[in-house]
Amino acid sequence: MKKNYLLAPGPTPVPESALLAMAKPMIHHRTPQFSQIFKETCEMLRDVFQTKEDVLILASSGTGAMEGSITNLFSAGDEVLAINGGKFGERWGQISEAYGLKVHWIKVEWGDAVEADDVKKMLDENPNIKGVLTQASETSTTVQHPIKELATITKDRDCLLIVDGITAVGVADIPMDEWGIDVLLSGSQKAFMLPPGLAFVALSQKAWKQSETSTLPKYYFNFAKEKKNIAKDTSAYTPAVSLIIGLREVLLLFKETGLKEMFAKMDRLGRATRAAMEALGLKLLAPKAPSFAVTGVYVPEGVDGAALVKYMRDTIGVTIAGGQDHLKGKIIRIAHLGYVDTFDTITVVAAVEMALKKFGADVQLGRGVAAAEEILSEQYA
Amino acid sequence: MKKNYLLAPGPTPVPESALLAMAKPMIHHRTPQFSQIFKETCEMLRDVFQTKEDVLILASSGTGAMEGSITNLFSAGDEVLAINGGKFGERWGQISEAYGLKVHWIKVEWGDAVEADDVKKMLDENPNIKGVLTQASETSTTVQHPIKELATITKDRDCLLIVDGITAVGVADIPMDEWGIDVLLSGSQKAFMLPPGLAFVALSQKAWKQSETSTLPKYYFNFAKEKKNIAKDTSAYTPAVSLIIGLREVLLLFKETGLKEMFAKMDRLGRATRAAMEALGLKLLAPKAPSFAVTGVYVPEGVDGAALVKYMRDTIGVTIAGGQDHLKGKIIRIAHLGYVDTFDTITVVAAVEMALKKFGADVQLGRGVAAAEEILSEQYA
Repeated sequence: MKKNYLLAPGPTPVPESALLAMAKPMIHHRTPQFSQIFKETCEMLRDVFQTKEDVLILASSGTGAMEGSITNLFSAGDEVLAINGGKFGERWGQISEAYGLKVHWIKVEWGDAVEADDVKKMLDENPNIKGVLTQASETSTTVQHPIKELATITKDRDCLLIVDGITAVGVADIPMDEWGIDVLLSGSQKAFMLPPGLAFVALSQKAWKQSETSTLPKYYFNFAKEKKNIAKDTSAYTPAVSLIIGLREVLLLFKETGLKEMFAKMDRLGRATRAAMEALGLKLLAPKAPSFAVTGVYVPEGVDGAALVKYMRDTIGVTIAGGQDHLKGKIIRIAHLGYVDTFDTITVVAAVEMALKKFGADVQLGRGVAAAEEILSEQYA
Repeated sequence: MKKNYLLAPGPTPVPESALLAMAKPMIHHRTPQFSQIFKETCEMLRDVFQTKEDVLILASSGTGAMEGSITNLFSAGDEVLAINGGKFGERWGQISEAYGLKVHWIKVEWGDAVEADDVKKMLDENPNIKGVLTQASETSTTVQHPIKELATITKDRDCLLIVDGITAVGVADIPMDEWGIDVLLSGSQKAFMLPPGLAFVALSQKAWKQSETSTLPKYYFNFAKEKKNIAKDTSAYTPAVSLIIGLREVLLLFKETGLKEMFAKMDRLGRATRAAMEALGLKLLAPKAPSFAVTGVYVPEGVDGAALVKYMRDTIGVTIAGGQDHLKGKIIRIAHLGYVDTFDTITVVAAVEMALKKFGADVQLGRGVAAAEEILSEQYA
């Protein structure tokens, strides 16, 4: 009868209204009934992406939308710049290389954001670079990159800004059109509070234009074909019906709440989490440019971070994430995205306190929760 | 998208497995399929009541089982003793009076338990009293009465011990047969973690014997008729099908967990709640004999308890209970029964801290949570 809590950076808990909608009997996707749902969903998605363009819905994980962004926009031998400040930045470069692009890398220390000036310098020195590939929030290192600044750099060049917003869209204010982002993509299991299985991607007019010249091979992830189908309120291939039905419910919740209110809430949960961890004497992994969606902290000296994560999941019932690669065992990552609220943050902070104490760390119970409560109380009248 | 938490003394949250089972398509109650479910459920109920006797399942709230306990066991003019230490003790007497019994009252100060000696004295002085009516846990005043002692008093007399265990059965160790309780009753929306709508009642052999002479009018709550039907794996009147299907799921969870483990958990949540409230400087309503299921505390001077409860429910999203009658506005009641666990207790304590601070009370954020964490940590290896 132990309850379990999901505070890893996706999947997140799923709202009841979406669970119930997805549990309804299956309907067929080539019907007016589904087309109506699809149409409404596509319209509401545009609002969350803050774009006038179509947002394509793909039956894939986010990586599928990343791959499609490469195969639909470039040709073999094209040059791109990959901002490699973590596992997902690295992935951008790996996909590009798999398709025969020439990749320029900017390596960023894990925990740091890329310097916009370094990007500008790289583009100045390599005028053939046709795309900058980055994350808005690099989940692996709990960092946010300066998307707005990067957009000002790419805007007037023959170069696209391609942004993985998997743990950013719907969490923080990333106005695609206003900032001039050329490709923005996301996935269902993050801010969209759904099971994994859907990816979303929107292209600017500049990106659509460039896609016309792309010669890389593609079939399933064919953005132009999807766009044509959206105009007919359907998708090119069989859509993930129940996930889209769930998505509609989540987007209705978003609409009811309002983006501004949503962003303020996620920001509050993030600040509360960071304040709590610092109150416990823990060091943040990314204090200067923290991710909107997830907070990384170093575990105290002598504590095995991987064992701590396992203990929290299996004994306490609270799932968080650990570190990857050279940060394995050294950090924990606590999410604040998706269907989480005030008392989920209280829960994970209390769980971290109790777990750290069990692991012999010198923490004072309640101190992290007190710091979190201070910030979380802001919302109350 | 705000989440809501139910920490009032019933209804409690419902476990996912029960929700899903109750959401399945309706089945008919006069079928082998339902009879099998009914049979299994009745068998498992006996374990929770710790009795070899049948446990009747009634489609009613707990008050129905209280009324039935009077109408099936007594006759007009019979004398009973009602232990009136709160709203539910009072109800025992009111039901008895409505059916023309002669009620002897023992009035107990709200927040105190009855003294077993007072009961003994009353029975000694009034040898015609045929039943002692009490609560195991008086929800309104957050008190536990000394059932084991009372049973030793009634055991060898021509007098039944009739116990409302609505917020006690399944929460704490009340071994019906071992202690010699004659009637023990409960309801679905408390420890049984279900929506309201079912009541349970078990009778000792002594009680069944006395029921044979009862002449009070009864029809729907006819215990002998229900008992005969249980032998045929069914109920006298239309059972609340989906609730019984949910009950089976809950009882399977109980079985999997084990009663001892369940009681230890609820005791831990109760101790954590009381320690948290005391750490915040609040005074317990029933420090000497606290209820297994719910903790009552006085709100600080100058705080309107009713407004605090409303604020916690409507603004913070955490439902607790206030006080009744002369305690209205003066206390809050925080439950620890049903489908609640460690982080529900953390949640309600954090919510009380934040709410009290907003109401201008002199509380230090995190102090209650720290005290709760200390006790809740006991469970972890």
